Amino acid sequence: MKNIAVFGLGLIGGSIASALMGFEDYHIIGVNRAGETLRYARENGIGDEATDDELTAVKSADVVFLCYPPQKIIDFLEKYKNDFKPGALVTDVCGIKTAVMEASRCLPDTVDFIGSHPMAGREVSGIKNSLPTLFKGAHYIITPRATSKPENIELLKRIAAQLGCMDVVNTTPEKHDSIIAYTSQAMHIMAVSVCDDPYMFDCLGYEGGSFRDCTRVAALDVPLWTELFSLNSKALSEVLERLEKNLHSYRLAVESGDKDYLAAKLNVSASRKKLMNFEHERGDDMSR
Amino acid sequence: MKNIAVFGLGLIGGSIASALMGFEDYHIIGVNRAGETLRYARENGIGDEATDDELTAVKSADVVFLCYPPQKIIDFLEKYKNDFKPGALVTDVCGIKTAVMEASRCLPDTVDFIGSHPMAGREVSGIKNSLPTLFKGAHYIITPRATSKPENIELLKRIAAQLGCMDVVNTTPEKHDSIIAYTSQAMHIMAVSVCDDPYMFDCLGYEGGSFRDCTRVAALDVPLWTELFSLNSKALSEVLERLEKNLHSYRLAVESGDKDYLAAKLNVSASRKKLMNFEHERGDDMSR
Repeated sequence: MKNIAVFGLGLIGGSIASALMGFEDYHIIGVNRAGETLRYARENGIGDEATDDELTAVKSADVVFLCYPPQKIIDFLEKYKNDFKPGALVTDVCGIKTAVMEASRCLPDTVDFIGSHPMAGREVSGIKNSLPTLFKGAHYIITPRATSKPENIELLKRIAAQLGCMDVVNTTPEKHDSIIAYTSQAMHIMAVSVCDDPYMFDCLGYEGGSFRDCTRVAALDVPLWTELFSLNSKALSEVLERLEKNLHSYRLAVESGDKDYLAAKLNVSASRKKLMNFEHERGDDMSR
Repeated sequence: MKNIAVFGLGLIGGSIASALMGFEDYHIIGVNRAGETLRYARENGIGDEATDDELTAVKSADVVFLCYPPQKIIDFLEKYKNDFKPGALVTDVCGIKTAVMEASRCLPDTVDFIGSHPMAGREVSGIKNSLPTLFKGAHYIITPRATSKPENIELLKRIAAQLGCMDVVNTTPEKHDSIIAYTSQAMHIMAVSVCDDPYMFDCLGYEGGSFRDCTRVAALDVPLWTELFSLNSKALSEVLERLEKNLHSYRLAVESGDKDYLAAKLNVSASRKKLMNFEHERGDDMSR
């Protein structure tokens, strides 16, 4: 029997611990300090076992999942760098990868650190909102080192499949962070920007699906996202600048009164979106 | 037996015709010119009856639903203004109200025109995508005239309930258009702006829920939305200008490197969103 230790039983960690139960011959250990979370994990069968003994869990784990915000991951690696089981695969789940991969350099050669980012989440947090199906259909991104063992990459692929992910995307931390600035971080900045409108509360009763969808993620975990944005500020700032320009250009088109121009512009954007949907579905088909 | 005639069996009209079947003692007549749509309506039982005879349907209808884009509604009212049944309630479903209410002034006093905007939609169009449940939980906005009959307002409330709407919001066309510029139109402009990013197609494999939700409506019906944006350009331009400023202010916060400031700013926006969710749910509870 081998062990997978999942550190941090919040929304993501709790969902991973649930979803991994029954995976091959692994025993799933959930690790968390807060007593209430531990009790909840035990009472609801999240993980095969739940403990607050971090050191023992680190020492016994063949696979370690760090489900913490970036700085806590960095601190954890520094604290336990000499305690991981030789040959262990250590991974994380956080939304930026360069800073985490940098920090993992403190680990001895006997430990293989491969960054992970399963691209799913909810606008609520905590173990009580965790779901074994949270990652169904999501992309699972990995950022291996040049020295990562192929068998560990294969193991992560099987783990991603167990979580229900649609595919595994293998990339560099730099490429991950640059792209995620657009596909995730900028979407969150847009959502909070919309909610800063002074007239928002006058609009109760007038929200449709587009408002609910575009602002859903605005109720974000502030300390986590402050870290994520700050650790990726250069890439994020570039995306936001492009977005401001695109938005401004649409405002000018609306103000111009030139319907043909506005229609042509909308046609370009809508066609791009339809093509993106098509490519996404094709990727989905190919992964089955 | 009284008649409700639904003109234009697209996504919205088809959904309304389906959902209204069985409503009180009304017979539901779907009206459409395109033969293929008519055939689909008949084969799939959308409406009690489907016809391409507009004039007969206008003459026989106690309630008329115009499910067309704005200009087509305006043209329809002008064309058939002298053919509506005396005492008829005429309504529409389109996303701007001032221009439509203006156009309805051509109707004789014997016809009561009350604007409607059931706030639901999908990013796909046509009768084949229509759903009797499309309006479940949606707000149903009405813009009556000062002279509208109370019994017609009551009738629209019962119709909204039959559609499954969560509430009926009674307002003026001007207020509707000003608010909708924010809660709907600006969300669509944001979505298309995001899809204009030159690097979008490099991001396949990296999309999470926030990207899919924020860009869902970008695959829009171009002629329809060109009309909606153009007929509400002043209000929309004002909202977009505020949104650009809010987005810019977030970019400055990200670039500043001042984490405390960024966290404080995120905290304000996230709290506003949580309060908005709370107020929405409270409204939902009150309407039950």
